[in-house]
Amino acid sequence: MGAAGPIDLTYSFDEQSVYWPTETGFHHWYEHHGRFGGAGHFYAAGKFYAPEHGGTHMDAPLHFAERGASADQVFLGCCIGPACVVDFEERAERDPDAMLAVSDIERHEREYGPLPAGAILVARSGWGKFWPDKKRYLGTDRWRDVEHLRFPGYSPEAVSFLLRERSVAALAIDTASLDPGNATDFPVHRLWLGAGRPGFENLANVGAIPPRGAVLYCIPMKIAGGTGAPARVFALVP
Amino acid sequence: MGAAGPIDLTYSFDEQSVYWPTETGFHHWYEHHGRFGGAGHFYAAGKFYAPEHGGTHMDAPLHFAERGASADQVFLGCCIGPACVVDFEERAERDPDAMLAVSDIERHEREYGPLPAGAILVARSGWGKFWPDKKRYLGTDRWRDVEHLRFPGYSPEAVSFLLRERSVAALAIDTASLDPGNATDFPVHRLWLGAGRPGFENLANVGAIPPRGAVLYCIPMKIAGGTGAPARVFALVP
Repeated sequence: MGAAGPIDLTYSFDEQSVYWPTETGFHHWYEHHGRFGGAGHFYAAGKFYAPEHGGTHMDAPLHFAERGASADQVFLGCCIGPACVVDFEERAERDPDAMLAVSDIERHEREYGPLPAGAILVARSGWGKFWPDKKRYLGTDRWRDVEHLRFPGYSPEAVSFLLRERSVAALAIDTASLDPGNATDFPVHRLWLGAGRPGFENLANVGAIPPRGAVLYCIPMKIAGGTGAPARVFALVP
Repeated sequence: MGAAGPIDLTYSFDEQSVYWPTETGFHHWYEHHGRFGGAGHFYAAGKFYAPEHGGTHMDAPLHFAERGASADQVFLGCCIGPACVVDFEERAERDPDAMLAVSDIERHEREYGPLPAGAILVARSGWGKFWPDKKRYLGTDRWRDVEHLRFPGYSPEAVSFLLRERSVAALAIDTASLDPGNATDFPVHRLWLGAGRPGFENLANVGAIPPRGAVLYCIPMKIAGGTGAPARVFALVP
């Protein structure tokens, strides 16, 4: 384990968890919480309900690819790898439609060396500072209002470049979607998931990990047939 | 990562997933699965409903300890550690009420050395061969029939011994409960969770990991206030 223990990059699932404007949110309730049975000891248990896509979660290839792997079928080996954190926070601060570009990856590689095979790329836009304020994090807090979604994402060109020129296992980002909020037909999802690889969205606390050197674990719940799943994302820094 | 990649010790969550007789099961459904939007590309997304306790999952201390940590509060460092697999399969095969005893731990230590600090103990009863046949795995397939639960578990004496004499981070087992099925007031849960440590139940495929040498990852969904949570359990063997 990392010298300092795992660094948790996951938002707690609760009533504040941010979901897409077309999704109802996360609900958890106790069936029991108090004294129980003959012995009168304390006992508590609950249930929950959740859309697959919201909070810190995985997009399985099946989300946008009819014959793609479902959440339970994604190979765990693709969910664990060396973290490469590509920062485009300054540009995102000036422009909520900013997209992580090929030039951001090239700049990162000039400074830290080529992306290693099996890397997990983390796009760092700085958007975590707005969580869980939907108005600021998504661009809208209105039910079904997909027209006003505004937040940074990956550019289709960067993702094509990665598929063509690098061997990255998974993409991750600190916003609600791999595509920027103003995308209408989700080219990044179609490219990346269509190539059979998973994505991880709504990462928390990405400022806590270094640009290189951490091992990232993006561990999804094993939902049979899931198009996505809640994920526990954490980093170990040797 | 382990030379052979992660070994998955998790059952998929589906309609067959085994839950306690008093619990409704796991349900997953698609909201959309087909062509979508102006571009006519494929898109699929779903939702799910689940009790906290069923399938491969974590018991948080809060499950039996009123001031215990909830699922989101359990330190991830306690969910990752060297796996020590203690086998009592032969005895369990003859007796479904068998309990992992202090003598099983002592025998394991004579063969493999002392349990290292931070270990995750895995009780291997061989019960996975019955999953998901509730009648054989739980002892009953009847709704609310807790009277006829029958499967192996930990003995209270073994757990007291571990708390007193060893530094184990978490307990895991390949049955539905840390306590055996015929327990009425859950002494093992009260001892172990009461000591502020997590348990992991319904591990799959435990025969695939060696008695020593694997690193076990028992990674729970981060449910705020959860008394437990679905977990993805896997092993890396260096």
